[in-house]
Amino acid sequence: MRMMLALIAALAASPALADAREPILLRDMGSFHVGGRLVEVKGQPVKEIVFTPGGVPAKLDPNGVYQVEQMYAQYFLVQNRKGRLPLLMWHGGGLSGVTYETKPDGNPGWLNYFLRKGWDTYLSDAMERGRAGWTDKFKGDPVFLPLGDPWERFRVGPIGSWNDDKAKRAIYPGVQFPLDAYEQFMKQGVPRWTTTDDQIVAAYIELVDKVCPCVVLVHSQAGNFGYRVAEARPDKVKALVAVEPSVPGTKDKVAALKNIPIMVMYGDNAKDHPRWGKIRQNMVDYVGLIKGAGGSVDLIDLPDIGIKGNTHMLMMDKNSDAVAEVIQKWLAGKGLVD
Amino acid sequence: MRMMLALIAALAASPALADAREPILLRDMGSFHVGGRLVEVKGQPVKEIVFTPGGVPAKLDPNGVYQVEQMYAQYFLVQNRKGRLPLLMWHGGGLSGVTYETKPDGNPGWLNYFLRKGWDTYLSDAMERGRAGWTDKFKGDPVFLPLGDPWERFRVGPIGSWNDDKAKRAIYPGVQFPLDAYEQFMKQGVPRWTTTDDQIVAAYIELVDKVCPCVVLVHSQAGNFGYRVAEARPDKVKALVAVEPSVPGTKDKVAALKNIPIMVMYGDNAKDHPRWGKIRQNMVDYVGLIKGAGGSVDLIDLPDIGIKGNTHMLMMDKNSDAVAEVIQKWLAGKGLVD
Repeated sequence: MRMMLALIAALAASPALADAREPILLRDMGSFHVGGRLVEVKGQPVKEIVFTPGGVPAKLDPNGVYQVEQMYAQYFLVQNRKGRLPLLMWHGGGLSGVTYETKPDGNPGWLNYFLRKGWDTYLSDAMERGRAGWTDKFKGDPVFLPLGDPWERFRVGPIGSWNDDKAKRAIYPGVQFPLDAYEQFMKQGVPRWTTTDDQIVAAYIELVDKVCPCVVLVHSQAGNFGYRVAEARPDKVKALVAVEPSVPGTKDKVAALKNIPIMVMYGDNAKDHPRWGKIRQNMVDYVGLIKGAGGSVDLIDLPDIGIKGNTHMLMMDKNSDAVAEVIQKWLAGKGLVD
Repeated sequence: MRMMLALIAALAASPALADAREPILLRDMGSFHVGGRLVEVKGQPVKEIVFTPGGVPAKLDPNGVYQVEQMYAQYFLVQNRKGRLPLLMWHGGGLSGVTYETKPDGNPGWLNYFLRKGWDTYLSDAMERGRAGWTDKFKGDPVFLPLGDPWERFRVGPIGSWNDDKAKRAIYPGVQFPLDAYEQFMKQGVPRWTTTDDQIVAAYIELVDKVCPCVVLVHSQAGNFGYRVAEARPDKVKALVAVEPSVPGTKDKVAALKNIPIMVMYGDNAKDHPRWGKIRQNMVDYVGLIKGAGGSVDLIDLPDIGIKGNTHMLMMDKNSDAVAEVIQKWLAGKGLVD
């Protein structure tokens, strides 16, 4: 009763129930790892390890069976559900589920937005990233990004605009990324490989088998993963929202997507960008193939509907709620909101 | 209003308000990265990278400034607060904040336990682990653990008890670890280094400076981190709960801890274990030094208070709620629960 009174008092103190201040009421929350496989290592010498200076040494026999290639998911199940299916949000390359949490400028991100709209929401760290863990058994070397790379590649400023000196960085006019939080954003980065897509997709398929039917929202690198998982599980992915997808799905499998409503969204300065222009055109061509197979795709260029200044990291831009609202309304239009 | 009615209906449907089924009401939740530093890389050749097969190539200039050594924290702020200070829970070596989330057997872990008890709770991924990211600039090689290593080192079974064949594994009699979930537990592992303690502590100090005064609960490797951070910030760490700590703090700095109530807890089979017996004895000696400097430490061996069968991973054992209750009561006894 005390809990309920406190809640009622809190609600009363916020008569307008402004979304961003509304409490988040969960019937449950939790996390799990899913997918992966076991690999065996043989013939290595036994080591003695002091894990912490001053600690008691431990024998480590590196021979044996290892768990590799699993992924991580964290879920928040709302008390007052309005989304008709679970909403899964998949991050882009070199990042983790943190993408959708608090924005680098400290304001609420899309996780809290969609929870407050009544969606059971699953964030995940793809195989290899973040809490999924990683292994020395991947092929090739991991990629690490210097500060300036995403500034230009994610369209905060045009190519050549980065400068280590904050005062000398150029930007796109009216850009919505919170410039003072750029270094904070770069703290979210995690190493990535370029050889692991198949393992990532395999783990996502296991995630979908576990928690779907669902809506899948993907960003950037995960665009390709979303399409590929939908090809493999067209009965379980009931809608696909591809936010700034970087690579299409499998061209000869578009027929599998014909019953899945799809939205593709790009921000500002994509069409004419030397690299993003090509990426977007590849996606336009791919969307044409899906439509040709009888599918339904809405391709939205945000500036064309009056939402300007968005970078590749739409969910962190200052107007991220306005972008999320476009998605929420589209999902409602597909009958996925009660 | 609809939200409130739904909530009241849900509460009414659960008249006993059994803890594990009680909704989790949050006034807010979010995450952030904190700490770290910038390092510069020079003289490397520019590369062209295809991030995803079939994608548009990108130029990557690896020269420039890199963000390294930050850490990650995720917070859940309860609607009906009863803990008088934020509760920070720090994981052990080769693991992440996932340690305190859903247990490998699917039951609620200590995060949900303490949220339902009314604590504002911060989980974190230490510098280097999980969502903190990692860098190729650490010294030495990362450590990867085969399946059998924690089985013995974390006291599920005695030394020599592991077998890759499930049916042939030996256990300690009455062990509380959920044996069928052992492989699931191993999916939570992340690589670790043995050279990075100072950077981990530096980031934890920044975390404490940001969110404390607080209660800090540490596990295993983080025992050492908890002591060291408390030495550096004795005014901000208002209580320290060291769960199965593996390494003491700094012996000549125990005077800094004299005003901090400390609980040290070990599970079953620690005293007589070839390695844990030494670890525990080091801790007994260290506790003696703290007490000699005027400090207050309660060292609890769980089997001595009738709680038997606990492994090193107390928070994942089947009786994890009973162990958490010991901590909750101790915190209440220190005046930290309203």
